[in-house]
Amino acid sequence: MLFINSNIASSHIEASEIKNYIGQIVKVHGVVHKIREMSGFAFVILRTKQSMFQCVYSEEFSNFKLSEMKENMGVVVSGKAVHDERSRTGAELRLYDFEIVSMSVEEPPVVINNKEMACSLETLLDYRPITLRNARERAIFKLQAGICKGVRAFLDENNFTEIHSPKIVYSGAEGGANIFSLDYFGKQAFLAQSPQFYKQITVGVFERVYEIAPVFRAEKHDTSRHINEYTSIDFEMGFIESFYDICNMETKMLAYTFEFLKNNYAEEISLLKANIPVITEIPSIKFLKAKELISKTYNREITDLEDFEPEEEKLLCKIIKKQTNCDFVFVTHYKSSKRPFYAMDSKDNHNITESFDLLFRGMEITTGGQRINDYNMQVEKMKKRGMNVEEFGDFLMAHKYGLPPHGGLGLGLERLTGKLLDFQNIRLSTMFPRDINRLTP
Amino acid sequence: MLFINSNIASSHIEASEIKNYIGQIVKVHGVVHKIREMSGFAFVILRTKQSMFQCVYSEEFSNFKLSEMKENMGVVVSGKAVHDERSRTGAELRLYDFEIVSMSVEEPPVVINNKEMACSLETLLDYRPITLRNARERAIFKLQAGICKGVRAFLDENNFTEIHSPKIVYSGAEGGANIFSLDYFGKQAFLAQSPQFYKQITVGVFERVYEIAPVFRAEKHDTSRHINEYTSIDFEMGFIESFYDICNMETKMLAYTFEFLKNNYAEEISLLKANIPVITEIPSIKFLKAKELISKTYNREITDLEDFEPEEEKLLCKIIKKQTNCDFVFVTHYKSSKRPFYAMDSKDNHNITESFDLLFRGMEITTGGQRINDYNMQVEKMKKRGMNVEEFGDFLMAHKYGLPPHGGLGLGLERLTGKLLDFQNIRLSTMFPRDINRLTP
Repeated sequence: MLFINSNIASSHIEASEIKNYIGQIVKVHGVVHKIREMSGFAFVILRTKQSMFQCVYSEEFSNFKLSEMKENMGVVVSGKAVHDERSRTGAELRLYDFEIVSMSVEEPPVVINNKEMACSLETLLDYRPITLRNARERAIFKLQAGICKGVRAFLDENNFTEIHSPKIVYSGAEGGANIFSLDYFGKQAFLAQSPQFYKQITVGVFERVYEIAPVFRAEKHDTSRHINEYTSIDFEMGFIESFYDICNMETKMLAYTFEFLKNNYAEEISLLKANIPVITEIPSIKFLKAKELISKTYNREITDLEDFEPEEEKLLCKIIKKQTNCDFVFVTHYKSSKRPFYAMDSKDNHNITESFDLLFRGMEITTGGQRINDYNMQVEKMKKRGMNVEEFGDFLMAHKYGLPPHGGLGLGLERLTGKLLDFQNIRLSTMFPRDINRLTP
Repeated sequence: MLFINSNIASSHIEASEIKNYIGQIVKVHGVVHKIREMSGFAFVILRTKQSMFQCVYSEEFSNFKLSEMKENMGVVVSGKAVHDERSRTGAELRLYDFEIVSMSVEEPPVVINNKEMACSLETLLDYRPITLRNARERAIFKLQAGICKGVRAFLDENNFTEIHSPKIVYSGAEGGANIFSLDYFGKQAFLAQSPQFYKQITVGVFERVYEIAPVFRAEKHDTSRHINEYTSIDFEMGFIESFYDICNMETKMLAYTFEFLKNNYAEEISLLKANIPVITEIPSIKFLKAKELISKTYNREITDLEDFEPEEEKLLCKIIKKQTNCDFVFVTHYKSSKRPFYAMDSKDNHNITESFDLLFRGMEITTGGQRINDYNMQVEKMKKRGMNVEEFGDFLMAHKYGLPPHGGLGLGLERLTGKLLDFQNIRLSTMFPRDINRLTP
């Protein structure tokens, strides 16, 4: 009988480790990303799992003809590791020989091995399977993976328990018409707009929970800010004294994550010229005050008293940046009419809620707040809204049998990534975006 | 202006830290899980985010009447930390006073604070929002969160990049009729059966990728082994020499994860009497050989030459356990007709594939294998199967412009969890299961 043991034998070296093999002959594998012919020699850039890696071809020491090597080939190269100050990996490889393990059938229809993709957004997304191979595009999603890593490390440290809540649900949590429905063995079901019900239910179990998972919004508008499926970083925590405890936790989480990125993703940050802020504190302003501030500062008429226009979010961030030098601002106490039925109303004014949004560089990236934890209060609010309380019996079970004061938030991963990179369109920080016109690739 | 800073001020102590405060008066918050009256005193068990924590009530030192405290109340208790050898946290709290922060409206309809839930599976799942509060039920999903943590730590260490692939897709990856469809702004779309296409596409970008995310299978049968939405641990890696590299990586991943669980989830393991195996190597057997072995050993007729019956998976594991003392077995080289179109056929026999399943204690928990990376080979296999090649243009783009030899696997999180706990039904290790009859809670 054959036995698979846990020793993975590979004689290939990681590109990042080559600096430890100076003077030795080593094997490295990767895809030939670019061949740059110079006079008398050539640079061969390999795309490897962590970084791009520079090899040098020269008839002096290479035992093959350069014309045998083509871009987009998968190769195992062997050569001598030599020290190189200028290289990001601290070393380069003098190519002796190579072996082909895969080939492309034809030339890519878009140039993917220049510094940036010089094409339209449509082309960038239509050819996503190959445009992602561009060094810059790749770095965007490396950084995005880093955000998740940092966030998880922080939440784990703070005793949050990860949950996996169902995405096929019997009822929408956020209300409204922007929900996808499907036939579930003859019953109508929906795609979860958020893990809200499950987060609140499991606060009653674990006190602190989180989930990083897809959410689905059937919004019909086609804007640079919206996609119809996105990755939501959700957490919820019990035994809070007010929603400011949530703001506090988010401030700490973002500070931790940005620090984590700086320490672990320096190469991507530099390549993308990412502007990673240092957070010590974040200013907080009430919604109506913010409205007035914008109106006064920019001499604008207030038209919508319940929500911001996108332009107002930008202006508010501009004002806050000027006043405090902070790229973030918490806007608090939104009107009840604009918040879901589970939002906690303020004690002294039932028309406003103990809720907040977090704006970052002109865009809302988080919605959160304190939730109603008292059963009777929740039932009453639902009745006032004309909701069928019985439909929500499973959700209310958590409240009925005791649920501590709690709150939480949802943070859009793609929006956060995009704003760190000063992108103007959410699609640029979404690996395979879904919008009203796009279901592929 | 108010500023939110990153210092979270809480004067409450974590239950796990009380042993560091012996002799001091501290505050702890939690939910009153159980009150156990003894003669002259009482134990009050608090449910806190990490563990259950024991407090002692006595008229001698407690400044309130025991009858004021009720089970399922959210409370902040204050008291004196005293050393206690017998307690799992190394300390207990002598209750001085308490403050109520939340209440239950009525008694739970099922007893949740005994050692185990003594109810039917139906009741357990119908009342999930509260049955999860049972110490044992809670520990199951703590352990499950631990599996994800261990797996991610391993994959991160091995330079896999996390991806977030779309769940609303234009085409099924796994074929067959077991796919949910939905209306996507007037177009037909589907729920992803697996992240397969996106994993293969991004192998061309990052070489090694992983995702832990929901997958959806519209399977119509109602068995103890199937649910219709589950959490799939998926990875895919490039530059492999054969599918055994994947088996190798999985062996290493499981060994690492089990070690991680033992080091970090001792309390849950002990409470659940979880049987966490030590893996050094896993035997591997070809599918047809396995069929013969089962047939010979148990004198059974071979009826299905293409797949195992569930009973055969159990018998094979029994044989392997006896022969090698291993709880796992790789079964390899399944018939092509039983594997998806992207599976790599064996060079010397096109009727079998370079694929494997991993069985664990009588059940398949992983399916994996080498994939076709050559464009022409993939197109040819699709044509042979009568597939419309043009429909898969986005997927094939990865192959066309060069894709290294690669393979990967999908591992069901709920099945793995369940088998570690010797559960007979997948629903027991699923927080909120979805099956043909269940869409709630």
